[in-house]
Amino acid sequence: MELFPSPDQFDDNFQAFLEEACLKLCDWFSKAEETGPLPSINDLPEVGPKFAGLSRKDLLKDLDLIMNGSFQPSHPGSLAHLDPPPLSASIVGDLICAGLNNNLLAEELSPSLSRLENNLCRWIAQKIGMKTGSGGVAASGGSLSNLMALVLARHHSGLSTDPNAVILVSEEAHVSIYRAIKIMGLPAEAIYKVSADNSGRLSINSLNEQIAKLKFLGHKCFCVVATAGTTIRGAVDPIDDISDFCFSEGLWLHVDASIGGVFSLAEETKSVVPGLSRADSITMNPQKLLGITKTSSLLLVANTNHLSSCFSIGFPYIEPSWGSTMNGGEMGMQGTRPAEILKLWLGLRQLGHSGIQALLVNSIERKTYFKNRINSDIFEIITGPLHLIALTPSAITKEQAAEWALSTRQLLMDNKFMLSRPLLNDRYYLKAVMGNPHTQNSHLDQLSNLLNQSI
Amino acid sequence: MELFPSPDQFDDNFQAFLEEACLKLCDWFSKAEETGPLPSINDLPEVGPKFAGLSRKDLLKDLDLIMNGSFQPSHPGSLAHLDPPPLSASIVGDLICAGLNNNLLAEELSPSLSRLENNLCRWIAQKIGMKTGSGGVAASGGSLSNLMALVLARHHSGLSTDPNAVILVSEEAHVSIYRAIKIMGLPAEAIYKVSADNSGRLSINSLNEQIAKLKFLGHKCFCVVATAGTTIRGAVDPIDDISDFCFSEGLWLHVDASIGGVFSLAEETKSVVPGLSRADSITMNPQKLLGITKTSSLLLVANTNHLSSCFSIGFPYIEPSWGSTMNGGEMGMQGTRPAEILKLWLGLRQLGHSGIQALLVNSIERKTYFKNRINSDIFEIITGPLHLIALTPSAITKEQAAEWALSTRQLLMDNKFMLSRPLLNDRYYLKAVMGNPHTQNSHLDQLSNLLNQSI
Repeated sequence: MELFPSPDQFDDNFQAFLEEACLKLCDWFSKAEETGPLPSINDLPEVGPKFAGLSRKDLLKDLDLIMNGSFQPSHPGSLAHLDPPPLSASIVGDLICAGLNNNLLAEELSPSLSRLENNLCRWIAQKIGMKTGSGGVAASGGSLSNLMALVLARHHSGLSTDPNAVILVSEEAHVSIYRAIKIMGLPAEAIYKVSADNSGRLSINSLNEQIAKLKFLGHKCFCVVATAGTTIRGAVDPIDDISDFCFSEGLWLHVDASIGGVFSLAEETKSVVPGLSRADSITMNPQKLLGITKTSSLLLVANTNHLSSCFSIGFPYIEPSWGSTMNGGEMGMQGTRPAEILKLWLGLRQLGHSGIQALLVNSIERKTYFKNRINSDIFEIITGPLHLIALTPSAITKEQAAEWALSTRQLLMDNKFMLSRPLLNDRYYLKAVMGNPHTQNSHLDQLSNLLNQSI
Repeated sequence: MELFPSPDQFDDNFQAFLEEACLKLCDWFSKAEETGPLPSINDLPEVGPKFAGLSRKDLLKDLDLIMNGSFQPSHPGSLAHLDPPPLSASIVGDLICAGLNNNLLAEELSPSLSRLENNLCRWIAQKIGMKTGSGGVAASGGSLSNLMALVLARHHSGLSTDPNAVILVSEEAHVSIYRAIKIMGLPAEAIYKVSADNSGRLSINSLNEQIAKLKFLGHKCFCVVATAGTTIRGAVDPIDDISDFCFSEGLWLHVDASIGGVFSLAEETKSVVPGLSRADSITMNPQKLLGITKTSSLLLVANTNHLSSCFSIGFPYIEPSWGSTMNGGEMGMQGTRPAEILKLWLGLRQLGHSGIQALLVNSIERKTYFKNRINSDIFEIITGPLHLIALTPSAITKEQAAEWALSTRQLLMDNKFMLSRPLLNDRYYLKAVMGNPHTQNSHLDQLSNLLNQSI
C-alpha cells in the first residue's frame, strides 16, 4: 500500500485502511459494558519498527493489543475522573483534523481553521458574557491554559522579571498552578495561600488578610486565581466578590474554570458559576464534560490584544496573517499545533444548545440522585453545585479512612465501578464524577448500595 | 442519531458517520493536485451551535467549507515549511486515539498507552545512541519540548529562582527559545547570543568568548542550546565540540533537534547530526518530516529521573502508576493530554526502518537535485546538510531582495508552488523544504526554472 494518501486520485487503499480502523473502533466501543472501565494488564505489541514496513493488516492487529489494554471511558461505571466518553462528532473532528494536518501556527498553514479558532473563541467568550474585545486561544490542556494565564497576568502587571512577584490562590486550587509558578521561575513562597471555607470556597476574609500581609512584606501581586469547580468536590469560589476585590486592588483575576466553565454555556446552569464573565482570563476545558476529545482547552481573555502583546515573537519565516487577528503561533505558548478547535466546533454543533444544556443539567441531576442515596449518617459528603461528589466515613480515623478508601475502591472496581481516591486535608475520600451520560439511575442505585454497605 | 457511541452494541449510526467522514477525507486528498497548496479565501460555516443539534448530514456539509478552505500539504508544490503530508497510519492513529480518549495524565487512565509512550521514547533514545537510563516524554509541539528542556536544565543547575541565570544560544536558534526565556521569568538579556559562522553553525570561538564574559559579569549559566537543523537553512551546530565544552564547564547541553533529530534514526543519514546522543536533552519532532500528524514532538533526556524530579507535583487524586515509571502527568508540563505517541508508533511501524531511511535520504536528494539546478551565478544559496534550502539574488540590495521575494513568492504561488519568505540577517530569502514525498524531479525542474528566470 502507499504510505501517503494519493494527491491526484481517489485512494482506495487509504479508504480501506480507514474503514477497517473505523470498524475496529466501533467494535471496541460495543464491548465497553462487557470489559468494564479498566482492563487487566495485558501484553504490549513490539515497540520499534521492523526493517520493512508492516502491512495494513499487521498494523491493525497491533492496534488490538493497545485497544484491549485501554481505559474505557464509555463504560457506565467510569466515574473516577473528568474523562467522559467522546462525542461521535468530536471523533470525526479529530479524524478530519489529522487528515488535513493543517498548522495553527500561521494562517497560511490553516486559512479556514485559524479563522474558525478566532471566531469560535470569540463566540464562546461573548456567549458567557465577556465584553466586546474578548476572545481566546486553544491550548493543549488546562495546565497550559493556566500557565499562559499566569504568564499573561505577570506580563500585564510589568512584573515579568521580578523575583519577588507573588500570586494569591485558594488552598483548594489545582496543582497545575504550583507547577506553573515553578516554570515561571518563582519560588513556592510566591504562592500566597488563601484559606477555603468549609465548603471548599475561597474565603474573602482570608484574601483580605493575605493581601495585607504581602503588602506589608513589600511583595507585589500580579494575579488572583479563583477556581470555578475544584478538583475534588467541585466547589465554586465566590467570583463576584473576588472580582470586586480585584477591581479595587487593580489586580488581574484569572478563573481556573477548567471544570465549571462549561456550565456558563447554558441558560439553565449558568447560575452555578456567577460572575465568571468578569474575569480577565478564564481556563475552560470542554474535554472535561462535553465529550470533546483530548485535548480541548481554551484560554479566554477579556482583551485578545493582551495575548499577542505577551506571546508574540514575530516568527521571521511566516507570512503575516491576512485577517484582522494575529497568527495563531503569536497568541500563546505553542508554535506548531493542530486544529483542536475543529472537534470543539463540530461537537458543539452536533449537540446544539439543547444538547449542551441536557448534558450539563443531567450531570448535576445524577450527582443529586446519587447524593440522596448515600447514607449521610455514616458518610461525610462533600460536594459543590457541580457534578462532582466525594465522601468519606465520618466516624473513623484518618488511618482507617485510608484503608477504607483503598479496599472500597477495589471492591467497587470488582463491580465495574471506577471511582478515584483523592486526599483532601490529609484524609482519603472516594470521589465520583457524574459526567458520564451512559450512567443510569440503576447504576447509581447499585453504586450507592455498595458504598452504604462498605462501612 | 446518538451523540455518544453505544457502549453495549455495535453502533451502526456511528459507523456510518465515521465512514462518510472517511469518504470525504479521501475525496479531499484526491483533489490536492487540482486545488494547489493554498485555496482562495472562502466562506466559513456558522460558528455557534443552533438550538437543536445538527444531523450527521448537516455536520458533514459544514465540514466541506472548512476543508475547502484548508492548506493542502499533499500538493507536490507545498514546500514552504516543515509541514509534510500525513502518513496514512498516522491518520489512523489519530482516529483511534480520539476514539479511545485515554488520558496520558495517569496510567489508570491509559494503561497500555502510558507504557507505550515510555517504551517508545526509551527505544528512540537508545536507537539514536543515548545511554541506559535515557528516555523521554511526548509534548504537544516543539516549543513546549524546548521550554521543558530549559526548565529542566535550570532546575538541575539549582538556579530555578535565580533572576540572574542565563543561557548560551546561537544567534540562529529558533525563536521559541526567546519565548521560553520570557515564560521562565528571565529578561531578554539572559540570552547570551553566540555568533554563527558563515554556514549558520554556532561558533566555538564565540562560545568561549561569551562564557568568559558572563563569568566576568557574575552570571550563572544553566544551559547551552545547540541546534540540529536551523529553521531557515537547516544548519547543524558542531554538537561534538559543544558537548566537549559543556562537559568541561559542567553545563547542561540541550539540542533543539526539532528538524534534524529524525535523521539520527537511520544508518545512512545519522552522520548529518554527529554527537547528538551526547546531549542532556533533545527536542525531536517527527511531525516535521516523517509524516506524523501534528503534534508529534518528543523531549528526550539522558536521565528520565530528571523529568520527574523537576515536574512531579503529586496529583492528590490520581492512583500511583503500577509500573516502574511515573504517571505521564508527572513527567512534563502538561497534565491531561492525548496519546500522541500512538500515531508515532503506528507510523514508524508502517514505514519500517527501510521506509524511514528512504524518506530521509530522498528529502536530502531532492534538496541536492534542486540546488544543482539553481543558477549559482545569480543566487546566493544557503543550505546545510539537511533538506532545507534558501536563496536570494546576490547582486541586488536588501530592499530589492525584499521586493523580489514578495513578487516571486506570488509568481510561484500562481504556478502552484508554495515557498516561504524568511528574513535572515536583515535580508529576505525564498526557502524550500524538501520534505514532501509527492514532489518529483519534474516539479523541481519547473520550480528552478521559474526561480532562475525571476531575476
